[in-house]
Amino acid sequence: MTDNRGNVDANKLTAFAAKALQTVGIPDEDARLTAQLLVAADLRGIDSHGVTHLASFYVKRIKNGMVNPQPKMTITRLAPATAVLDGDRGLGFVVGYRAMVEAMSKAETEGAGFVTVRNSTHFGAACVYAMLALSRDMIGVAMTTGGVRMQVPGAKGYGAAINVLSIAAPSGAENPFVLDMATTAVAGGQVDTAKKKGIIMPVGWAVDRDGNPLTDPNEFGEKGALLPLGGAPDTGGYKGFGLSVAVEILCSILSGTISRTEELVRAQNESATRGRANHFFGALRIGSFIPPSDFKKSMDNMITAFQGLPKAPGVDRIGVAGHRAQETERKRRKEGIPLHPTVVKALEELASELHIECDLWPA
Amino acid sequence: MTDNRGNVDANKLTAFAAKALQTVGIPDEDARLTAQLLVAADLRGIDSHGVTHLASFYVKRIKNGMVNPQPKMTITRLAPATAVLDGDRGLGFVVGYRAMVEAMSKAETEGAGFVTVRNSTHFGAACVYAMLALSRDMIGVAMTTGGVRMQVPGAKGYGAAINVLSIAAPSGAENPFVLDMATTAVAGGQVDTAKKKGIIMPVGWAVDRDGNPLTDPNEFGEKGALLPLGGAPDTGGYKGFGLSVAVEILCSILSGTISRTEELVRAQNESATRGRANHFFGALRIGSFIPPSDFKKSMDNMITAFQGLPKAPGVDRIGVAGHRAQETERKRRKEGIPLHPTVVKALEELASELHIECDLWPA
Repeated sequence: MTDNRGNVDANKLTAFAAKALQTVGIPDEDARLTAQLLVAADLRGIDSHGVTHLASFYVKRIKNGMVNPQPKMTITRLAPATAVLDGDRGLGFVVGYRAMVEAMSKAETEGAGFVTVRNSTHFGAACVYAMLALSRDMIGVAMTTGGVRMQVPGAKGYGAAINVLSIAAPSGAENPFVLDMATTAVAGGQVDTAKKKGIIMPVGWAVDRDGNPLTDPNEFGEKGALLPLGGAPDTGGYKGFGLSVAVEILCSILSGTISRTEELVRAQNESATRGRANHFFGALRIGSFIPPSDFKKSMDNMITAFQGLPKAPGVDRIGVAGHRAQETERKRRKEGIPLHPTVVKALEELASELHIECDLWPA
Repeated sequence: MTDNRGNVDANKLTAFAAKALQTVGIPDEDARLTAQLLVAADLRGIDSHGVTHLASFYVKRIKNGMVNPQPKMTITRLAPATAVLDGDRGLGFVVGYRAMVEAMSKAETEGAGFVTVRNSTHFGAACVYAMLALSRDMIGVAMTTGGVRMQVPGAKGYGAAINVLSIAAPSGAENPFVLDMATTAVAGGQVDTAKKKGIIMPVGWAVDRDGNPLTDPNEFGEKGALLPLGGAPDTGGYKGFGLSVAVEILCSILSGTISRTEELVRAQNESATRGRANHFFGALRIGSFIPPSDFKKSMDNMITAFQGLPKAPGVDRIGVAGHRAQETERKRRKEGIPLHPTVVKALEELASELHIECDLWPA
């Protein structure tokens, strides 16, 4: 369902988001950067991580002091290929971009660069950072901690974070490889989507407090837990949990702060831990291994090999991570972004609250 | 089930494996190293990746020329933190150890070190390489390509490799974190185990050529495919596939060779691709981020927080990746390794074939 005024224009949406952020005290350049990264998610079809949360997450958290609009970030560099960044509770987009740029700058000279980040906040979609590496002929890595709503195998209810990891690698004629995944079977946004659409969730997404399958999204509420990728222990659920812990180690422990689970235990309340995040970024410069042109040719060959496999009945194309998003992006750049009417309404309300104009449609 | 002579002694088993490998032309030091890494898997309870395959994989492949007993490995170093190693079809253990040592040596000076490896062969369990980082206060990463038996979402039958990734991080008083996982829901060895034990496999492990659930392990044969971690697409199966491709990129594409799927397409025959492998190793020196003592304390706190979560009925301990293996290792170092009678028989037959002694039991 799209607003009856049609698709919105990506540039106008970006300008609006930037203006809104500037109005609540984000410096101009940071506001523009954040707006671009937010709309980059909308362009790729990651609607759950774009402007849908501009008001409810970002503007609100800036206004209530949870996000520091003018952070004093500090970078500690103890070795040529590594760094630790303290985000001073700045907007996750600003903090994340700065850290990814640092990782790539290290990779430029050292071949590899890794930056871990503490004291940040929600940074939107992970892939937009990993993808910054693509045009520099690098493999990009971005990870973040998320809400503490993953079921830990053997535990009652939730206890681990819905941590996210993204890896991007360039190809030649084919679409780049862009993996962007929560370490749960599905991201929290998919439960919300099921709720909006009034559909039943497949077994394997969520469980209730007692570990029973939870298929009605209306019952997820404050007590439901998302299953780790792999589902139950006998189908590999402990691997999804293990991946969550690995991301936690790289984002939280390595950056010198406490894990999200320890935060939960201290706060005794999941909602009190929301919004805070730690990240981890990495870049490998392909030219420090093999010539990038060889790499890209080989990527194309691999993708072609996957696509040439015999197809299951009813399947017209075999997809590799990020390929559908790439096509969505091409389409939306040309035809605009089909925002859901509730999202448009929220943006219009935000505009009215901030006394700014809301002009999103092509002239 | 254990041989009626009881548990075998780890040191004697190592000496025997080394002797067998020397007898078929592996240089002494390489044979000892390989034997240690093989038995390290048995000690940790990874019975599918230890001496069980000494005859059938390693000795056989050395004798039939698939593995080069005296490889001339070459290392290309184009940047301070990265390298490419060509394994010249050497034993995966020898090649893998050399590459991991190179990655750690780079991490010592640069903070991070990453080495990608082409032209190698089966290297056993991935965690034994990642764990080499632990005593050096580093986070270790090891990845390898595996057999091309993963179902690709949307494809008929198998088409992606059962790629494996391992990440190890040290802790203080608690057991270290050691994740070692195939990117399929279960590793191929678990199908073999189900077959041996005559048990039915859970839905979510494997499918037949038409994509139907395959639960009888006897029907897996040459046509069955293992589902990616996450199972069907609607429970996240495309994520397991994405992880497999990410590992493939780092091991195969980045090292300058072709992907396992392209190999399969070229050979038109999965069995013709067996035994070959590419790897990827990484190390991050913790002290180049934060003091290792702080890191370990924080790891302990995280582990304690997980273990303190409310437990599901019937659960007496919440496990973190590698903890059960660590306990198995402590027990087996003390009490010996309970080899299955069929494994003992295979070792005795190997001894007889190679005209060497097979003395495995404590005096």
